Order: sequence, then structure tokens, then C-alpha cells
Amino acid sequence: MTIKLYGITMSTCTAKVLACLHEHGAEFELVPVNLQNGEHKQPAFLAKNPFGQIPALEDGHLTLFESRAISAYVAEKFKGSGCDLLRSQNPKEAAVVKTWMEVESQQFSPAISPIFYQSIIVPILYGGTPNQTIIDESSVKLGKVLDVYEKKLNSSKYLAGDFYSLADLHHLTYIYYLMKTPYGKLINERPRVKAWWEDISSRPAFKKVAAGLTLGDKN
Amino acid sequence: MTIKLYGITMSTCTAKVLACLHEHGAEFELVPVNLQNGEHKQPAFLAKNPFGQIPALEDGHLTLFESRAISAYVAEKFKGSGCDLLRSQNPKEAAVVKTWMEVESQQFSPAISPIFYQSIIVPILYGGTPNQTIIDESSVKLGKVLDVYEKKLNSSKYLAGDFYSLADLHHLTYIYYLMKTPYGKLINERPRVKAWWEDISSRPAFKKVAAGLTLGDKN
Repeated sequence: MTIKLYGITMSTCTAKVLACLHEHGAEFELVPVNLQNGEHKQPAFLAKNPFGQIPALEDGHLTLFESRAISAYVAEKFKGSGCDLLRSQNPKEAAVVKTWMEVESQQFSPAISPIFYQSIIVPILYGGTPNQTIIDESSVKLGKVLDVYEKKLNSSKYLAGDFYSLADLHHLTYIYYLMKTPYGKLINERPRVKAWWEDISSRPAFKKVAAGLTLGDKN
Repeated sequence: MTIKLYGITMSTCTAKVLACLHEHGAEFELVPVNLQNGEHKQPAFLAKNPFGQIPALEDGHLTLFESRAISAYVAEKFKGSGCDLLRSQNPKEAAVVKTWMEVESQQFSPAISPIFYQSIIVPILYGGTPNQTIIDESSVKLGKVLDVYEKKLNSSKYLAGDFYSLADLHHLTYIYYLMKTPYGKLINERPRVKAWWEDISSRPAFKKVAAGLTLGDKN
């Protein structure tokens, strides 16, 4: 039975899972969710994710939500084909991958997501004016996180070691959108972070996904 | 070589890992970190966690940080003794555990942590006045998360199924502190959440940890 992923290609969280599926060459069906019509808040979708957020995944009778949990499931299920994104054969490497996955979740994401929301979602989806104070405060936070990355990437090619992992992959979609804004300088000002970004964003699996991350594109 | 956990017993994040270590009856040494003296911002600790936050763990040459990554490592390493907190022998159960671990991380924790900070940290550690607006807004958010839990706990005894897992364990320390405040009513008002809390907080492994969660105690 084919895996079904419920979401939309331009969503950072859906695209994160798509990047993981493509890394493994996994077969799947992307089932669009109509956010404009509030489909994600209707009973049929709430039965998949009670928090009413995309993405959700169905694999036979198994239903999962929360993008980081879904991508970890995909990486584990398909670890035999493509890149071993969790390093699950080596418990110590796997633990370091998990540590940097948590860094993305607890340090990076809370700093970058308000910049994404204010500079892309507010003006484009709501026709509003970005709150510059929030952007500036979050830019300072993000800069500090990226300073740690700059130092880390001096001792290893990727965040968790000299191998590409889910810890790197989870950063792709937010940074892709950041690079469309003036705040992309936070990446470009740090040579090792910039080189890491250029490396991970040039992977064929992500290029397929990036084509769908159309928010903020000039029409 | 004995595992070393760097942190303090009254910290929610340190105590989360302690609860996991006790579930497995693991041998370890708790190495106190003097936060008052800023020890966590000094080079020796920053070499363990470049973000300067407790806890950190050393297991031989392996150094880990981020409490959720550490507890997952402990649960995997000691899965043969005590409760199987990750259900790693069953990929589908393991995926559901990960989903609810992400719910704790992405839905529950962002809602409860401002209440903890305002109602316990601000008055006790800083002698300040809690910001009631933040508490009220976060209480609404937390209530919505707990409404989902109330429904979920109608169909299974614990969050990820009829087994205690790391998804439940990660909730213990924040709720323990919440119950010392008037906002404990958010738990008590929901019968299944209340029963779940009474169940998980009565586990011997957590009772050992709760004794150290002394912030907010009347002297």
C-alpha cells in the first residue's frame, strides 16, 4: 500500500518530509489539503492529526503527524535505500544525530520561524505589514545559533559529523525561504554555514522539493 | 565507565533525564553545575554543550546535550532493563511514541513553559512580578493541548498507546511544577488527564526525582 502524505508543497513542514521521501526514492502519494477552505480543521483531517496541522502521513493502518516524527519514521523505514539519515546502525552516531535534530527543534526553529512568519507569511498571505521588532529580535537569536553552527562546521562537514543526516535535512526548508529575504545575510555572512547550506541545498532530493516552495516568488 | 550527567536536580530538563535513568536503574553520577556562578557559560561547560544549557551527558568519549536527545539515548542504551520507553522493537509503536514525543516538544512545552517561567521562576529566582497576560494566554493554549490529550486518553491508557513511554515521561517535570501553582486546575479539570497524571507521577522512578524539584516549595 502506498504511503499517503497529506499536505501542500509550499509548506515548510510538508516539504521537510518530502525531502526525506525523495532522499530514499520512496513511493508515495501527496494528497493536497485545502487550507483556504479550512480542510485541516474538519473532522476527516482531525482524525489524522487532532491538532489540525499539516502534514500527516498514512502508511496502511498507521497514521502519524508532526513533521519531525514523520521524517524519522520515513528515514527508519527506508534506511536500506539511499542515505542512512539516522545512522541507526551506530548508536553513538545516532545519538549525536538526535542531539542536533533537537538543536534544530529547540534552538534554530524558534529563532527562524518568526522571521519566516513576519517577512513571508504576514505580507503575502495576510497582506499585512511585518513586525520589524520581532524580526530584529529573532535575527539576533538566529545569529547566535548560527555562530555555534559556524564553529561546529569547522570540525565536521555536517552538523552531526562527516555525514549528511536528518539533522541537516530538517534545516532545509526554513533556510530556503530565509534566502528569499534580506535576512539571508545571516547565512551568507558565515562562510562555513554558507558552504554547508550550498552543499545541502544542492542535493537532488531537495531540488525536487525546492521547486514547490513558491511562497515569496515574484510572479 | 560511569555515565556523568551535568545539571541540577531542580531543573525541569535535568530531572527529565534523571527520571529516565531511574526507570532503567542505570548507574550514573550527577555532576552539579553552578548556575549562580555562570559555570554553564564557561569554556569547560561550553565544550560539553555549546549553547550553555543544562543538562549535558558524558558516556565515555560521547558527549550529548538537549534533554530529549539525552533521554532517548538513555532509553535506547538501557532498553534491556526496566520499561521499554521507546518501543524500538516495534517500528510502528516506536513511530507513534516519536509522534507524541514531538507533541510534547512542539505543542505542550511551548504552552506550559511560559506559565512555569512566569509563576515560578520570575517571583522565586528574580523576585519579580509574574506577567499575568502571558500566563492567561499560555493557559488558553495549554488548555487546548490538554483537550486533545483528554480525548486521546479516552482511547488509550497513555499518550502513545496502552504502554508507558518516553512521550509520557517527558511531561512529568513541567506538570509537577504546574501542580504547585493555581494553574494545576488545567490538569485537575480534565478527568482523564488527571488520572493519567496521577498514574505517571506515582511511578517510583519519578518519585525519586520529584523530591529534588524544590522550586516553589514553602520553606
